Amino acid sequence: MSELRIDLNCDMGESFGNYLMGADEKIFPYITSCNIACGFHAGDPYHIERTLLGAKKFGVQVGAHPGYPDLAGFGRRYLRMSKMELRTCLKYQIAALKGMAESIGVQIKYVKPHGALYNQAARDEEEAKTIVEAVREIDPTLAVMGLAGSTFMEIASNMGIRFIAEAFADRRYDNHGHLQSREESGAVIDEPGEAAAQVISIVRDSKVESAYYEEVMMSAESICIHGDNPEAVPILKAIDSALRERNILKLPFQT
Amino acid sequence: MSELRIDLNCDMGESFGNYLMGADEKIFPYITSCNIACGFHAGDPYHIERTLLGAKKFGVQVGAHPGYPDLAGFGRRYLRMSKMELRTCLKYQIAALKGMAESIGVQIKYVKPHGALYNQAARDEEEAKTIVEAVREIDPTLAVMGLAGSTFMEIASNMGIRFIAEAFADRRYDNHGHLQSREESGAVIDEPGEAAAQVISIVRDSKVESAYYEEVMMSAESICIHGDNPEAVPILKAIDSALRERNILKLPFQT
Amino acid sequence: MSELRIDLNCDMGESFGNYLMGADEKIFPYITSCNIACGFHAGDPYHIERTLLGAKKFGVQVGAHPGYPDLAGFGRRYLRMSKMELRTCLKYQIAALKGMAESIGVQIKYVKPHGALYNQAARDEEEAKTIVEAVREIDPTLAVMGLAGSTFMEIASNMGIRFIAEAFADRRYDNHGHLQSREESGAVIDEPGEAAAQVISIVRDSKVESAYYEEVMMSAESICIHGDNPEAVPILKAIDSALRERNILKLPFQT
Amino acid sequence: MSELRIDLNCDMGESFGNYLMGADEKIFPYITSCNIACGFHAGDPYHIERTLLGAKKFGVQVGAHPGYPDLAGFGRRYLRMSKMELRTCLKYQIAALKGMAESIGVQIKYVKPHGALYNQAARDEEEAKTIVEAVREIDPTLAVMGLAGSTFMEIASNMGIRFIAEAFADRRYDNHGHLQSREESGAVIDEPGEAAAQVISIVRDSKVESAYYEEVMMSAESICIHGDNPEAVPILKAIDSALRERNILKLPFQT
Repeated sequence: MSELRIDLNCDMGESFGNYLMGADEKIFPYITSCNIACGFHAGDPYHIERTLLGAKKFGVQVGAHPGYPDLAGFGRRYLRMSKMELRTCLKYQIAALKGMAESIGVQIKYVKPHGALYNQAARDEEEAKTIVEAVREIDPTLAVMGLAGSTFMEIASNMGIRFIAEAFADRRYDNHGHLQSREESGAVIDEPGEAAAQVISIVRDSKVESAYYEEVMMSAESICIHGDNPEAVPILKAIDSALRERNILKLPFQT
Repeated sequence: MSELRIDLNCDMGESFGNYLMGADEKIFPYITSCNIACGFHAGDPYHIERTLLGAKKFGVQVGAHPGYPDLAGFGRRYLRMSKMELRTCLKYQIAALKGMAESIGVQIKYVKPHGALYNQAARDEEEAKTIVEAVREIDPTLAVMGLAGSTFMEIASNMGIRFIAEAFADRRYDNHGHLQSREESGAVIDEPGEAAAQVISIVRDSKVESAYYEEVMMSAESICIHGDNPEAVPILKAIDSALRERNILKLPFQT
Repeated sequence: MSELRIDLNCDMGESFGNYLMGADEKIFPYITSCNIACGFHAGDPYHIERTLLGAKKFGVQVGAHPGYPDLAGFGRRYLRMSKMELRTCLKYQIAALKGMAESIGVQIKYVKPHGALYNQAARDEEEAKTIVEAVREIDPTLAVMGLAGSTFMEIASNMGIRFIAEAFADRRYDNHGHLQSREESGAVIDEPGEAAAQVISIVRDSKVESAYYEEVMMSAESICIHGDNPEAVPILKAIDSALRERNILKLPFQT
Repeated sequence: MSELRIDLNCDMGESFGNYLMGADEKIFPYITSCNIACGFHAGDPYHIERTLLGAKKFGVQVGAHPGYPDLAGFGRRYLRMSKMELRTCLKYQIAALKGMAESIGVQIKYVKPHGALYNQAARDEEEAKTIVEAVREIDPTLAVMGLAGSTFMEIASNMGIRFIAEAFADRRYDNHGHLQSREESGAVIDEPGEAAAQVISIVRDSKVESAYYEEVMMSAESICIHGDNPEAVPILKAIDSALRERNILKLPFQT
């Protein structure tokens, strides 16, 4: 029988010039994959290189984390780009990160869209297709990472690109397996034990308990922990212990 | 005896969003190398891809043309960046262009710094070193292109990177082989016959007649024609004829 | 009996750094109001001042022409900003233009949203309200200009701000008085005589003939001519003649 | 006999989108003037308004704090702008801040250049003149603030603009009254008692003890405390106590 395993990922490299964001150095020891901002919604060339060097040092797998070209909105505002604009804008970002990674001997493994682009990909067929096309044109061996059970998952599979289903350790789900809106109280989990329990439930039983106390199916190969959650490090420690106790391996997803 | 040959290059891909610049389609038929803006001083992902497709169609060799991160100043204003900022900023730009080129089956061959960065590289050892380091980290088989006889040439050679010496068809030189300031009258050559004569003089005799009627040594493997010179196409046609008459081959520089 | 009069307006000051756009100098003699880009979707401080000086010289009334903060998209892509972000982003742009105008002795008279923001204001109550609030907070004596008969018109009136209804000389309308999509053939009028006829019809009879040959009511105090229409100057000349022949006065709208 | 008085100022409003910077709320209670970033090197419309509202609430005098258009470099990198570019770029920033301030009933009182522009103004006559011209064109009743004893002070006085000489509470000076380079150890004062002593020495005796233990003349009407000094609040508290003990009034500078 095969052993249980899970990948833990976190968004990184989001600092810009004098503006620092995240606690990358403290988080690297606990994760197996990191999604590095590519300079359009966050990140800059200097911080990209620095984050890549951190990932290399800690043996953490690297993915490109492109977003809408909107630094002022941190890529969290929907921007109606044409297919041509979006496709080339993503290719540019992925190529930049890929080339910088290779320059220090690191191969990127996947692409995870950021923020509003992530949400758009999860529900909009055209946006999802454009993202997959951009990835495929740069390197068809790259995987894409996105919301478990979403339109994006379906599109990527149809287009022959490996899809990594992602779930969240520190967010509640509704009864349909969608993320509960951040505007509802309790949507963000900041109690480390609860986050760890949710991870175990996803990995072992492929389900979560929803915000409304129902069981919801939830299959995922990677679990995201938000680096900007002030409890990120305690949550990561709790997940770590919980995984060890149950002999669940923490490993990068298989490509 | 080896035949005479020369490479003709032009800056391209400088359009940004709705802002169009240059007449790339009209110039492609006459040149053998094109320097494509990388999105920091000019260019955007959509126009980069479009220009790459044009270069591929016309069989024109491609170089990355990175600049200072200053769209408002078109990369023509000196910006005092730290070595770390400049190095990573250049790596990012070169990697983005290289990856986008490869996605359509084109390999970039060289890097030519743009505008104020070009001028800085020509005279400032530290800036020149940083550029060469950035190029080398992304791909040590890339050449760098710069001002014939400059500090940049010396540094690149010392660092083991192939240097392509460049001269200008449509600019006058002073008695030291430096470009005459654009503020002096006559600094820009817009008479096609004169530009062609200057090219022939450089290619055949390795010299130019300066603005002050002296002979100046000028060895170059590539000749730049400014795409924003309103006379660019007539100049290119005149050069074309002059080269044909003398059986001088118009070919990409040898790497 | 009061004389017929009409205001002619044009978008101006859209150049950015080395990227030139529009033929402002050729258009100024024919118009009575100009909408000056404020630096977020187009324009920069240098070109703003230059355009203000042109308006002053030609005695043309000035309005602020703010847009979404998206230079790469020229403000033509919808961006989902929060109410707070949009309101302050507009206040900033209007204040910048107003202050620069006053520094050369010119008072701005109105605000016309640009591109995607213009379209959004025409149909989205919340977006329209936010724009009016921003204008009112900077200067409640400013008018706002927008699509005749739109939601924006209704909101501005309800909020006690003078609204200038605008129609287009060089665009076709559908049977509901909406602009025909640019994707349909014939949507842009480039025959000067037809554009002039449409202007006369709007000014004298408060109606236009739609793209489908029906009469549509169309009341407007200002007529926009697109400066980027290659036929802008011939169209302006034709309108000029047509107005003169009918003794219709070309005057800035009354505030 | 007139009472001793001093103005305390701090740079504020430097957050940009999701990137937060500074602890404005904690610093407002201790200062009498604040220099608000104008959106080019730092700050955005939303944070500008928020900071203005804070200044109003705490009764703190407001100045515009414009910088080079270089968000990636936080305005700390010299950028070689033409006189025309710099003058209009400053006018735009000052006008934006002034208009937004007036929209909430606040009048800005002065302009203090930021970062590399501050340093350039202190030693470069042309740059200083251009800044003063920009300020004068927007509003000749505004003061300018800059380094005590600098070229900027001389130029402003010659041009008839009120100059506010500034000294630093938390930086050491050399024997010529110039700031000790941040690269030398001890250049930044982080011991609250020492900072307070330096302030008292400047206010009461118009001198400081240099890094090399010499007495240096130092006349200033305003003292700057760096908000990004981690000891900013303890330093402000220590200055507060020291001023009270000596019956020195903490008041906005007189215009």
